[in-house]
Amino acid sequence: MSQHEGDDHAAEEEQHVGEDAERERHASAMSTESLLAASDNVEEVHGGTQSSHRLLAYSDALLSIIATVMILPVAHTKMQGDEELDENLQLLLGTKLAVYLMTFLIVTVAWAAHIRLFQVIVRIDDTLALLNLACMMLITLLPYTFSLMATFPSHILGILLFCGCVMVIGLIQSVIVLYAFGRPFLLQDQIQACEDRTVCRHHILKVLLRVPVMCLLAAVCSFFCYQLSYVLLALVIFLPYISQGVLWCRDKLLGPVEEDPEQVMFYTFMPSEPLSKERVEAFSDGVYAIVATLLILDICEDNVPEPATVRQRFNGSLVAALRPYGSDYLAYLGSFATVGLLWFAHHSLFLHVVQATRLMGLLNTMSLAFVGGLPLAFRLTHELPHAASRDERRAVQAACVLVFGAGAFQLATWVAALQGSGQRTLRPAVRYGGPEHVFMLAKLTLYPAVALTAFLLTCALSRFSATIFHLMEIATPLAFLLLRLTVRVVLALLRRLFGPQRRQTLNGEENICSGVPFNPLLIG
Amino acid sequence: MSQHEGDDHAAEEEQHVGEDAERERHASAMSTESLLAASDNVEEVHGGTQSSHRLLAYSDALLSIIATVMILPVAHTKMQGDEELDENLQLLLGTKLAVYLMTFLIVTVAWAAHIRLFQVIVRIDDTLALLNLACMMLITLLPYTFSLMATFPSHILGILLFCGCVMVIGLIQSVIVLYAFGRPFLLQDQIQACEDRTVCRHHILKVLLRVPVMCLLAAVCSFFCYQLSYVLLALVIFLPYISQGVLWCRDKLLGPVEEDPEQVMFYTFMPSEPLSKERVEAFSDGVYAIVATLLILDICEDNVPEPATVRQRFNGSLVAALRPYGSDYLAYLGSFATVGLLWFAHHSLFLHVVQATRLMGLLNTMSLAFVGGLPLAFRLTHELPHAASRDERRAVQAACVLVFGAGAFQLATWVAALQGSGQRTLRPAVRYGGPEHVFMLAKLTLYPAVALTAFLLTCALSRFSATIFHLMEIATPLAFLLLRLTVRVVLALLRRLFGPQRRQTLNGEENICSGVPFNPLLIG
Repeated sequence: MSQHEGDDHAAEEEQHVGEDAERERHASAMSTESLLAASDNVEEVHGGTQSSHRLLAYSDALLSIIATVMILPVAHTKMQGDEELDENLQLLLGTKLAVYLMTFLIVTVAWAAHIRLFQVIVRIDDTLALLNLACMMLITLLPYTFSLMATFPSHILGILLFCGCVMVIGLIQSVIVLYAFGRPFLLQDQIQACEDRTVCRHHILKVLLRVPVMCLLAAVCSFFCYQLSYVLLALVIFLPYISQGVLWCRDKLLGPVEEDPEQVMFYTFMPSEPLSKERVEAFSDGVYAIVATLLILDICEDNVPEPATVRQRFNGSLVAALRPYGSDYLAYLGSFATVGLLWFAHHSLFLHVVQATRLMGLLNTMSLAFVGGLPLAFRLTHELPHAASRDERRAVQAACVLVFGAGAFQLATWVAALQGSGQRTLRPAVRYGGPEHVFMLAKLTLYPAVALTAFLLTCALSRFSATIFHLMEIATPLAFLLLRLTVRVVLALLRRLFGPQRRQTLNGEENICSGVPFNPLLIG
Repeated sequence: MSQHEGDDHAAEEEQHVGEDAERERHASAMSTESLLAASDNVEEVHGGTQSSHRLLAYSDALLSIIATVMILPVAHTKMQGDEELDENLQLLLGTKLAVYLMTFLIVTVAWAAHIRLFQVIVRIDDTLALLNLACMMLITLLPYTFSLMATFPSHILGILLFCGCVMVIGLIQSVIVLYAFGRPFLLQDQIQACEDRTVCRHHILKVLLRVPVMCLLAAVCSFFCYQLSYVLLALVIFLPYISQGVLWCRDKLLGPVEEDPEQVMFYTFMPSEPLSKERVEAFSDGVYAIVATLLILDICEDNVPEPATVRQRFNGSLVAALRPYGSDYLAYLGSFATVGLLWFAHHSLFLHVVQATRLMGLLNTMSLAFVGGLPLAFRLTHELPHAASRDERRAVQAACVLVFGAGAFQLATWVAALQGSGQRTLRPAVRYGGPEHVFMLAKLTLYPAVALTAFLLTCALSRFSATIFHLMEIATPLAFLLLRLTVRVVLALLRRLFGPQRRQTLNGEENICSGVPFNPLLIG
């Protein structure tokens, strides 16, 4: 089986992207041993033993569905008529969207905690699998308890249910930790090799139980003063960020504190803490997949007319009966294509990521939160009557803002990965000066740029906002297909225009230009 | 990083399951090179190059959602009252369930074709990724066109839309094949190394275009005689099985035909053709995850009462307002637990699978189709008033049948894997005589046995059917937790009872007993 016989000469750079990545990863793992070893070992072990791989994939699928579920009540809020849209939009934006965003945040916090836990426990057995399933079941209840809480802010039942769920989740996770530390072969190799495992266990339990304890406090408080409970619950969600901020301030004021190097590896809340790239991908895939198909769920259920209706009202003409649904189909196609292409950009980006960090995970989550709103925006855009151009313009602008947000946070994820030249996080091809750098930039800026342009155009030409939007829907997939070509043409033009001068400059002062992105392409 | 230092002595067999699997896989790959090489290479390559891994995971997620979506219209059919349940059940079982099952079948056929295609094309580039997304978008439209067809069987519009979708999908897949054969480094190594690639391409295109051509015929036929179209479409779905049956008959009648060994590897329709284990897992995970959370989708949307209603009708008591929803919560918990545990059994099984085959994939799909109906059955079971004991019994029995079907087909998957002693398909631990064999048997028979018992009990004690069902819901998770213990106790008892005699027999006639499952455990 001659694996690469006779294709090397034909292959373009991008086809061997992953292979390089593999080599690169091994190389970098060798050099920056201390930090990468942990996560690298995890992956090696994932292939072997009763690997937790599939358990985690299933958990990611469940969590991603739950995170995006709360957009459904928003999407199903019926628009009554033209004159009421403003109020409805107020209502939507005011409560339901807030519920959706908060649920998304809560579930992703739970997801991040789950990742952290299973970066320490890298092998599982049947008991752990069952405990994890119980934990998942409770997490899936969180959105419902939260929406009760949001709908009835002054009833303590919602608060109690929510806190109860979180406390039980915390307890189950503590049991998981205790169980795993009782069977050290389930643990990460570094902790396994560590002599003082009790310290590790203590540290993890302390971090883990912080949240349930806060919730217990909030639950007790709710009997006296429910407003205080909300403050406490808000603290729970933002606790990681707050504690990190406090640590940062302390470091700045008192100088960095020397910590036990064994402990820094996990359960820190530093933005540079490694995050399983595999799980970020799995969670994102789940969100993109469920969001892409959200509208077909509705279409399959609502858009098949009754046979009796067709016979009586449309004289048996199915085409006539289906015509009113036309906008729904278009909305589905538009949202599927947009979500699909955003997935494609995400896929291209993570193909070049070697190691994800917590900061990248956070930015990625923000991007996903915008993606979750897309089906709603597209439905609004296609459903609103063309007469009421002001409302239509609003809907189009909302869609543009969502697309822009989703794309911009993807770009931000890449920029976060590029920080510190992306030594640990990115493959060299897309780092500053890498051969794929410009192309990646083009891929990730395409959607934000298109959305921004469309937004500005609708401000100027509000009468044609629908037309602009439809043009955007058709043009963007084509742009993606022709992107590589376009980038090459633009680069060739740039080279024509600036090439000779730049080469002269380069000869003189090579150091200055080494950070310029399209340097190698301009020269090559 | 001493990876396995000092844990070998503490580890039980099952914790090192995967490691053994890895070793075993490599060993078996060496020995039965000709057949396994292809699939093995695929996995190796998946790790490297611009791997198609994530594209396939995303496609699997999309397809699994689409396959299970059509249960929603069934689940949302409201039960009007006690006396109408019979008619409603007739209606449900008659049309909507049929639509669900057929959609499931169609999507899984499309999924199998997709697997087959991407077992040949093992690396991707941007163009292929975009083409694949277009293909996915059209596949997600299939359930809707199919339900139009089912609701309006005599309108040709449904047939035309369905055939149109299938034809465009076929065309896109042909374009993918042509594109990939134009860039041979994207192909499987075996085909890459093959000298006469045109033959392979021709073979693949012939198989691929068979379906669109049939659909074109069906579309043309629909203008003259739509009944004939349905016959043709049914042929399309069962074509693989028919052609395989024909081949099997030919082989039996004329003796096996010597085929080009290069070509037998892919696009045969033999039940032993290898199927990507990874993708079977990913698709199953998607189905299990979406089915587990189907009810929470409804709960989040429908079960939050209006603040005004609570104030007026329940005197502001939220607990009183939520009480009517109690059965929904129980149904959710019950269905989540059942689906979760079925996933757990599936997970345990596939942990020991080295190589999946088409037959295993088919049986697994049947199991998943039953799983898809579970939320509906659980909702019915919990929603029906306790007074109408006959309807309740029916609902409980339907739930038992679904659970039994799901579990029985999982068991069948294992039995299919065991065929021919499972040399290629299973790890030695769970083959006949392996140390984990009995335990796996217990895990996989638990649900069918419980469901069967519950079914029989409801027949005998129809008055207590609800109680029996609730007991089953509580007892099964406990049984799973205590399964290993129970199996050990039972085996110890068996050893006590039959051990001595058997050992005597064994000394005499060792050959006969070598196939007995719990042989080593009885002796050891």
